[in-house]
Amino acid sequence: MIIIMEKNATEKQIKSVCTHLENLGFRINLNHGEVYTVIAALGDKRLIQPQSISSLEGVKEVKIIQEPFKLASRETKEEDTVIEFPNGLKIGGNERPVIMAGPCSVEREIDGLLEVAYAAKEMGAKVLRGGAFKPRTSPYDFQGMEEKGLQYLAEAREKTGLLVVTEVMDTLDLPLVMEYADIIQIGARNMQNFKLLKAVGKCRKPVMLKRGGAASIREFLLAAEHILANGNEQVILCERGVKGFDSTYTRNVLDIAAVPLIKKLSHLPIIVDPSHGTGKRFLIEPMSKAALVAGAHGIMMEVHHDPDRAYSDGAQSLSIPQFREVMTNLNKLIGRIDYANKHLCSI
Amino acid sequence: MIIIMEKNATEKQIKSVCTHLENLGFRINLNHGEVYTVIAALGDKRLIQPQSISSLEGVKEVKIIQEPFKLASRETKEEDTVIEFPNGLKIGGNERPVIMAGPCSVEREIDGLLEVAYAAKEMGAKVLRGGAFKPRTSPYDFQGMEEKGLQYLAEAREKTGLLVVTEVMDTLDLPLVMEYADIIQIGARNMQNFKLLKAVGKCRKPVMLKRGGAASIREFLLAAEHILANGNEQVILCERGVKGFDSTYTRNVLDIAAVPLIKKLSHLPIIVDPSHGTGKRFLIEPMSKAALVAGAHGIMMEVHHDPDRAYSDGAQSLSIPQFREVMTNLNKLIGRIDYANKHLCSI
Amino acid sequence: MIIIMEKNATEKQIKSVCTHLENLGFRINLNHGEVYTVIAALGDKRLIQPQSISSLEGVKEVKIIQEPFKLASRETKEEDTVIEFPNGLKIGGNERPVIMAGPCSVEREIDGLLEVAYAAKEMGAKVLRGGAFKPRTSPYDFQGMEEKGLQYLAEAREKTGLLVVTEVMDTLDLPLVMEYADIIQIGARNMQNFKLLKAVGKCRKPVMLKRGGAASIREFLLAAEHILANGNEQVILCERGVKGFDSTYTRNVLDIAAVPLIKKLSHLPIIVDPSHGTGKRFLIEPMSKAALVAGAHGIMMEVHHDPDRAYSDGAQSLSIPQFREVMTNLNKLIGRIDYANKHLCSI
Amino acid sequence: MIIIMEKNATEKQIKSVCTHLENLGFRINLNHGEVYTVIAALGDKRLIQPQSISSLEGVKEVKIIQEPFKLASRETKEEDTVIEFPNGLKIGGNERPVIMAGPCSVEREIDGLLEVAYAAKEMGAKVLRGGAFKPRTSPYDFQGMEEKGLQYLAEAREKTGLLVVTEVMDTLDLPLVMEYADIIQIGARNMQNFKLLKAVGKCRKPVMLKRGGAASIREFLLAAEHILANGNEQVILCERGVKGFDSTYTRNVLDIAAVPLIKKLSHLPIIVDPSHGTGKRFLIEPMSKAALVAGAHGIMMEVHHDPDRAYSDGAQSLSIPQFREVMTNLNKLIGRIDYANKHLCSI
Repeated sequence: MIIIMEKNATEKQIKSVCTHLENLGFRINLNHGEVYTVIAALGDKRLIQPQSISSLEGVKEVKIIQEPFKLASRETKEEDTVIEFPNGLKIGGNERPVIMAGPCSVEREIDGLLEVAYAAKEMGAKVLRGGAFKPRTSPYDFQGMEEKGLQYLAEAREKTGLLVVTEVMDTLDLPLVMEYADIIQIGARNMQNFKLLKAVGKCRKPVMLKRGGAASIREFLLAAEHILANGNEQVILCERGVKGFDSTYTRNVLDIAAVPLIKKLSHLPIIVDPSHGTGKRFLIEPMSKAALVAGAHGIMMEVHHDPDRAYSDGAQSLSIPQFREVMTNLNKLIGRIDYANKHLCSI
Repeated sequence: MIIIMEKNATEKQIKSVCTHLENLGFRINLNHGEVYTVIAALGDKRLIQPQSISSLEGVKEVKIIQEPFKLASRETKEEDTVIEFPNGLKIGGNERPVIMAGPCSVEREIDGLLEVAYAAKEMGAKVLRGGAFKPRTSPYDFQGMEEKGLQYLAEAREKTGLLVVTEVMDTLDLPLVMEYADIIQIGARNMQNFKLLKAVGKCRKPVMLKRGGAASIREFLLAAEHILANGNEQVILCERGVKGFDSTYTRNVLDIAAVPLIKKLSHLPIIVDPSHGTGKRFLIEPMSKAALVAGAHGIMMEVHHDPDRAYSDGAQSLSIPQFREVMTNLNKLIGRIDYANKHLCSI
Repeated sequence: MIIIMEKNATEKQIKSVCTHLENLGFRINLNHGEVYTVIAALGDKRLIQPQSISSLEGVKEVKIIQEPFKLASRETKEEDTVIEFPNGLKIGGNERPVIMAGPCSVEREIDGLLEVAYAAKEMGAKVLRGGAFKPRTSPYDFQGMEEKGLQYLAEAREKTGLLVVTEVMDTLDLPLVMEYADIIQIGARNMQNFKLLKAVGKCRKPVMLKRGGAASIREFLLAAEHILANGNEQVILCERGVKGFDSTYTRNVLDIAAVPLIKKLSHLPIIVDPSHGTGKRFLIEPMSKAALVAGAHGIMMEVHHDPDRAYSDGAQSLSIPQFREVMTNLNKLIGRIDYANKHLCSI
Repeated sequence: MIIIMEKNATEKQIKSVCTHLENLGFRINLNHGEVYTVIAALGDKRLIQPQSISSLEGVKEVKIIQEPFKLASRETKEEDTVIEFPNGLKIGGNERPVIMAGPCSVEREIDGLLEVAYAAKEMGAKVLRGGAFKPRTSPYDFQGMEEKGLQYLAEAREKTGLLVVTEVMDTLDLPLVMEYADIIQIGARNMQNFKLLKAVGKCRKPVMLKRGGAASIREFLLAAEHILANGNEQVILCERGVKGFDSTYTRNVLDIAAVPLIKKLSHLPIIVDPSHGTGKRFLIEPMSKAALVAGAHGIMMEVHHDPDRAYSDGAQSLSIPQFREVMTNLNKLIGRIDYANKHLCSI
């Protein structure tokens, strides 16, 4: 930690900050500049928050050197985390990227869901997505089928062998979702719902954590840290677009650079959701390709058997024929990527 | 609702969209332009979501005319909502703006909290703030004293007569918080925790809803709508800064214009939190003044008996002497504002 | 300057960076941490750019301690810059805030401009604004009356005694604008047109520099530094809103906190433009008040004799009767502000 | 154009708006809703700006249907614009993507530039980039070698056969730059320097227009429209990252989705600059790949013979050996892309 003292900081203030830091276990190195005095606090104390120092009298600024996340950091764990499922599927590291596909929300009858699930299976997807509990901006929108939806997903899993990823929105619903899901999804709006992060951190199932719409990379990895610190090491990150100043054509700005960046900072798998990331059907294919060559460990996309009648996100869902076409192209691309190359795929 | 069809939309597609809209209860008005066909769907059907239309075949774009929030809208309720507490305090409308003050989090011993509470009382604040459950970006930061913290707040209330506002982070904790709080706070990170919104919507206590760090005004009012739609009409909005592209000097961009804007769109009271909104102690006074003359119904600010030793947000907390000075100036300003002037304060 | 070396930086790399810094005139202080080696480079060398260091081998990160602007900095010049005009008007410091008013662009006949100018004069404004050269997002929009417009402004000045502020868009037009303007305006879109900044830096007339729509405070002050470094000390800064993620209701987010912040960092006067800052007529009054109590040295607002027929920005322009009403209220507020109080107005 | 009238708009106001629109040549279709009256103004009048309507009395909101750019629009010109150079190089459409490489700025002696140019040539790049006039945030940074730099570029062109792209910052320098450049670059900070856009619009050389750091896609295409409307049809667009709320690790957010989006909206070629787009050397390869599979017509990247000693942007420049490695991988990828597939590359 580097502490820059105010120009007019007194000797007493400087001394007081040093003592405070030494009491916290830091070794101190004082640098008297012409204008500013700079205190270098040495030692791996990343668990001390800089804010507690920055409010000390005479302190101008505190600059952290080490990332505030530890368990999520590649410095702590060099090798990639690869999540392995009972059916043999692996996500992360140098494994073949996984495709997760399915409707935004599970709706009405099970037939539509099954139709999507069979197509997903046939085209090489490994995970079926579908919301049973739906976070909706408006209280008047469809809020999800809840347990009935979970049962449909389970039935689709049984029939196709696909794994199921589905969102939990509240700690109260967690036991129920745990019964049905293979991967528990934390949605973007709940990325900093710390009670929920803690709760899934105590579970023994993989968690897919979506990046919040205005979350920095650091906040994203700190949210993962909440899960890891509670004992669950099986975290899959998901980039799904961040808010930008221009939403005329796309819902969000899909931050593809987050993929290679996070692979440098962390050992956790990172996948990309181009459906929410752009909000436009025609952008799913090019952005999936972009994510894959940038090194993503997987793609999550929305597919609906009848997008015109979808209760949610129809405009960003592929129809089944469109999905087949996109998958044909993605499979061709995936087949050519050499994932053995460390951290960066090469083609 | 205005539906703009694709340039090359077929007659069949146009017809199909019209039929769909008529089935939903709209009256249809067709406008054949030289390039685009535009369908005006007339009728107050704000509860139908535009996305379900935008995914129909041949639709280029759907433009909404009415705001998607209804109960929160000034069109639905012309007169200002004024929240009245058992002790006679009123928040909203043309009432004198209320000051809420207190530490970011309740910490250690009760003495510090009491010291702040007595100063708050003395300087004219009406509500004591303090976090017992703390949402923290890092899992290694202080997470709050939980029930013990609530007890301290209750004791401070008993001793000073101040009301208590404190945050609830999870539906599971709601019954506990309900026992102690006069105003239940929903934090910025939980603004779209819809399960929690629904839960507080079923309570019979005033709720203070903080704007999410990247929430648009519309999303903010829709979050309030979740509470209103579940039966709780006592919602106080709180602007606390939004993420900007520049966090070199300030944590957030405090959106003062949101105050007069929300007063135009909604009847709900709106207060401003300059502590979180800027992250800097020296900006609390000027930004409080700015918020008040722009029409805010109140100010929430962080005060700590010993900011240098605060577990959280020390750098943006006022010390008690600083708080006294700021309050002296704010009281002078408040005394001169004429709040009888509808929607806009005049001075 | 603080240089943090990579975890695995070699002794040779560390040595090489130190030598490089010593050659640049820095004194070096080495801090060997458990994980990272941190080099403190001491000495006031703000003119060396950190990027030239950050690309050295083994360097993880460079953190600057001193602001990169010097002449614009309050550290360099403690006392406020007050700009004094030949007619006695003063802008900045503890002077009464100045109102600048006028149409977005000078249009058609001179009568409308004169009507606005007389009203401005009568209500206490001191500066007439009006664009003769107009930066327009679309090439099909009205591009300004150019010299004819400047002549109209000069005529209005002669008749009313108001000073004239008008925008220059290009170095080629500068000599012409210099002939007519009392204050040369650099528009937001040209805030980083460095050739133009250099050119006005060589002029002997006050310059009003508008903040770019996505300019950080540091970039804003560095743009001012370009003017100061070329010899022109008479720079007035103007906050006019920055791009946010929500433009549903307002064109920009007006960053009121920039006012007290810039007053802390710099000695230059700072005014606020709520017309461009919000894009909405009804927000001009509350945001002007907010800016004034936050310490702004002035307000610039758009007034048009017939906003319904304005060639540009009609929706954010006040009509003359509206302007009179707003000014009545602002004058009342200004009359009560005590500007003698250093850096922060009190009321 | 769709005009939504205020809830309480009078019959007279509605009539007045209709008459106004009819006078402008629109056909009018009135839609009386239960709450709002909506006027559909039919006719291809994209050159009328909506703002002139939105300020009419009683108007709540104006929604445009057609994009405000015309010449840049794919609706106006269906087929891709392919720019052909005297040496046979083609940029755009289904042509092989072009690589532009070179140092950020031309510096000191010519030898370094030549070294880069020979490597660029050898690895398959077709265009040499290099700044002779440098826009610099700080006035104390290296401002470029000006004409000397242009001469160096010309010499490098002569020796290698590469074309030269270089930035012009001011209309005054345009004649000089015209003498030396094959492609005239307009930098991001000048994207809305309309005088400069107009001036290059009157030139007969291809222009590469970089997207402004906070420019929406619509503003970007409108800036291109300024060039096209002045007679120059040879415009190459360049996405180079936009400002985001998180600049901890990357300078900008590289908006890869802008590539397929712009290819849908416009016929102009679009290339990507991952050096400025991310600011990090290690992100150049993955983001170049991402851009290419998303359909970019080319990549512009920074290469320096000695990045540790670069006057600017060293941290985001590749060294020559790094460049060779990146190019080897990109060439492999490019060789596998099938660009015959309309609008979307397939692999």
